[in-house]
Amino acid sequence: MISKQNINFFEKIIGKKNIYSDPGDCWSYGYDNSKFHELPEAVLFPKDKNQLKNIVEYCYKKKINIAPRGRGTGNTGGSVPLNKCIVISFERMDKIIKIDIKNHIAIVQPGVINKNLQDILNKKKFFWAPDPSSWAYSTVGGNIANNSAGPRAIKYGTPRENILGLEFISGKGEIHRTGVTTTKGVVGLDITRLLIGSEGILGIITEATLKIIPKINKIITIEICYKNFKDAIDMIIRVMSHEKIFPYSIEFIDSEASELINDLEKDYYPKKSNALLFQFEILDLKDTVSIEKIIKKLDRNSLRMKIAENINEQDKIWKARKSLSPALRKLGEYKVNEDVVVPVANLSTFLKRLKSMSKKYNVKIVNFGHAGNGNIHVNLIYPNEKEKNSTKAKMCLDEIFNLVLSLDGTLSGEHGIGIIKKDYIGKEIPKETLKLMKKIKDQFDPKNILNPGKSI
Amino acid sequence: MISKQNINFFEKIIGKKNIYSDPGDCWSYGYDNSKFHELPEAVLFPKDKNQLKNIVEYCYKKKINIAPRGRGTGNTGGSVPLNKCIVISFERMDKIIKIDIKNHIAIVQPGVINKNLQDILNKKKFFWAPDPSSWAYSTVGGNIANNSAGPRAIKYGTPRENILGLEFISGKGEIHRTGVTTTKGVVGLDITRLLIGSEGILGIITEATLKIIPKINKIITIEICYKNFKDAIDMIIRVMSHEKIFPYSIEFIDSEASELINDLEKDYYPKKSNALLFQFEILDLKDTVSIEKIIKKLDRNSLRMKIAENINEQDKIWKARKSLSPALRKLGEYKVNEDVVVPVANLSTFLKRLKSMSKKYNVKIVNFGHAGNGNIHVNLIYPNEKEKNSTKAKMCLDEIFNLVLSLDGTLSGEHGIGIIKKDYIGKEIPKETLKLMKKIKDQFDPKNILNPGKSI
Repeated sequence: MISKQNINFFEKIIGKKNIYSDPGDCWSYGYDNSKFHELPEAVLFPKDKNQLKNIVEYCYKKKINIAPRGRGTGNTGGSVPLNKCIVISFERMDKIIKIDIKNHIAIVQPGVINKNLQDILNKKKFFWAPDPSSWAYSTVGGNIANNSAGPRAIKYGTPRENILGLEFISGKGEIHRTGVTTTKGVVGLDITRLLIGSEGILGIITEATLKIIPKINKIITIEICYKNFKDAIDMIIRVMSHEKIFPYSIEFIDSEASELINDLEKDYYPKKSNALLFQFEILDLKDTVSIEKIIKKLDRNSLRMKIAENINEQDKIWKARKSLSPALRKLGEYKVNEDVVVPVANLSTFLKRLKSMSKKYNVKIVNFGHAGNGNIHVNLIYPNEKEKNSTKAKMCLDEIFNLVLSLDGTLSGEHGIGIIKKDYIGKEIPKETLKLMKKIKDQFDPKNILNPGKSI
Repeated sequence: MISKQNINFFEKIIGKKNIYSDPGDCWSYGYDNSKFHELPEAVLFPKDKNQLKNIVEYCYKKKINIAPRGRGTGNTGGSVPLNKCIVISFERMDKIIKIDIKNHIAIVQPGVINKNLQDILNKKKFFWAPDPSSWAYSTVGGNIANNSAGPRAIKYGTPRENILGLEFISGKGEIHRTGVTTTKGVVGLDITRLLIGSEGILGIITEATLKIIPKINKIITIEICYKNFKDAIDMIIRVMSHEKIFPYSIEFIDSEASELINDLEKDYYPKKSNALLFQFEILDLKDTVSIEKIIKKLDRNSLRMKIAENINEQDKIWKARKSLSPALRKLGEYKVNEDVVVPVANLSTFLKRLKSMSKKYNVKIVNFGHAGNGNIHVNLIYPNEKEKNSTKAKMCLDEIFNLVLSLDGTLSGEHGIGIIKKDYIGKEIPKETLKLMKKIKDQFDPKNILNPGKSI
């Protein structure tokens, strides 16, 4: 347990009110959405970067480990305080420092909730592109640390493409400013993007300069059902290669997933459908007509096509899609949820091989996700804890990862490595390159006090 | 001079035909577009990464410095072989390894000329976004090393946003593979983007996985002239904030520049115009009508507006713009050409202050550039070499850089640091952060043999 002396020091910096040291208070800062839990040594709520700098300098001196934490919505244990960490919570560093509409820039503290930012931007007819499904609860800092994105990444990119500059504190307590406040800049090494997606192991972000974009408010949704997944994937490829339509999002729901939805929402989809949901931004109604025309021309072998122009019709389509998560939960606790990516045109092979693996390992596999980026959430549904943790289940997961890599894919599209995938990172990243990454990490955090036990 | 023994070793690896050691042969590999020149110790033309790996391993052992070189089109001396370098030329590593239209990917060797790639992609109705003005001669590898972009960066981004993965050789001769072949991925540290824009000091790129995009072939150009530059900049801000039009490029030409064009092309622009050239991609002709309507609605105080729908009319507009470089050359040899960026809404203040500096230092200043990114090419025109190199000229440049930074700008948008701006990098990047960058560099290149004397 952390010493009274250390707590006293922290209290001097941030005040008694801004620190939890009672295990009862600390408990809920020990988990995220991964079901890992580890009790923090203490939870600190700094208000600004100067307080944080003092904290990190002290931790560096005393070798106290630090787990930075947004709102703990991650899926891989990235914010779980392994190895006797104090938690730095950004709940009280949640200010929007500046919104500069003319320059398309927002400057924020890391603790601001993505949705709160979007609500304010929305009033000014702007948005920040990253839209992870946790957006209503997760922080911008957490989104940056995990390079979290959502459906509209296909059109607008991930945090990597939507951050101009960062301020962060290294593991030695040094404040660094990187990047620019412009959309171009090539002065020095790109430390900004090195920090993005680094899961808190290089530095603690204290401020971010975000690129914001004028918002197109009208969207149409098109839902198309196919008997065969290959027809669905081929349709995605044709749509994405058509120069006159640029999807805002493309979601895929395989036949196992659509049947789960059908159970809840009686026969919503034709039996055993592989469904696609396309969204397109439109400037005015005539765009709807031309998109509709193109989509109908590109379609082959569909069972059904719904084109939703008004909000009611759209809500119906998305209601079905959104019932998928509760439906999965109904299937039970013993699910392994992966977040792999393969190049879009390799999705058919991927799904076909998953079908054989489902038989081979006798496990239900439910797939859905952001197919326009080739990002598929693969859910392995086991009947009980024992089977979920069995050697056979491990072999199955191993085979899935090997398959993903053999298809030029990557093990994580948006959830990151955290604790969960740490054993697998060596599959994707060559040994020498991993060694190089570790050496880079050493330059930022020589005593390895920042989020130890995560990522690389 | 390099020893016979070293030359013999290189000849064994790549063959006699693929190496220059005669100073006469080597001469033209000693300069770029910056007017720096340094004779290389030798010029090597490897054909593949394995040859290159052997070369770099040997250079690491013997501590022989290496300057990687695309086609020497850079503006800052980045490829000039300072410090007794051998030059690695990529002329014979210019293969397009794979074009995968379905997955929107091209895999290339670094020596491929940007234009050659675009010509092939164009036949398949695709393109790679980066379009530096040197695109007809410069290599993709060079574009990546400098994060070089051009007018359409405003819509499609720079190499940073258009590279998925890289293969490179470190200063120790290790081959590394980084990144992915998908548009999403968060496994390990983002070494890919760390390499982009690093000017060859971290590694020598041997292969790049590029994101390619379906091409919209129809473009309209709108030219608008303003009496006051403030009206021009205000128009840019309004256009960029309008959610229904998304410019493909926005070029700005100030009144000094437009007068130079008027000298060549008699009275092309209204006298002392500040001109804007907008390009918009259109899907069909009805888009022209709506863009025209919006632009006319947004315009205030223009002297003249030309809307060019067909290629002939567009060529006329661009012919004027393109005559600017020859016109500048006519003004004489003694010009300092800068490549700064400020946030778009700060451009008015920037231009105003440049006008006062022009008077204060008694120097003609001609400005033009990619104003949609806030990227302005500032040209200081001196009457002779002596004045160009005077203390006063240095003070003027210094004041310009201070001004740029005080307006939240950056010293280089697309040319990089190279040799020319090395003395100024400390103005923009804090000392501690620069030190961190140097430590990162050490992990890639512990003996400092890769492009020594450049960038950081």
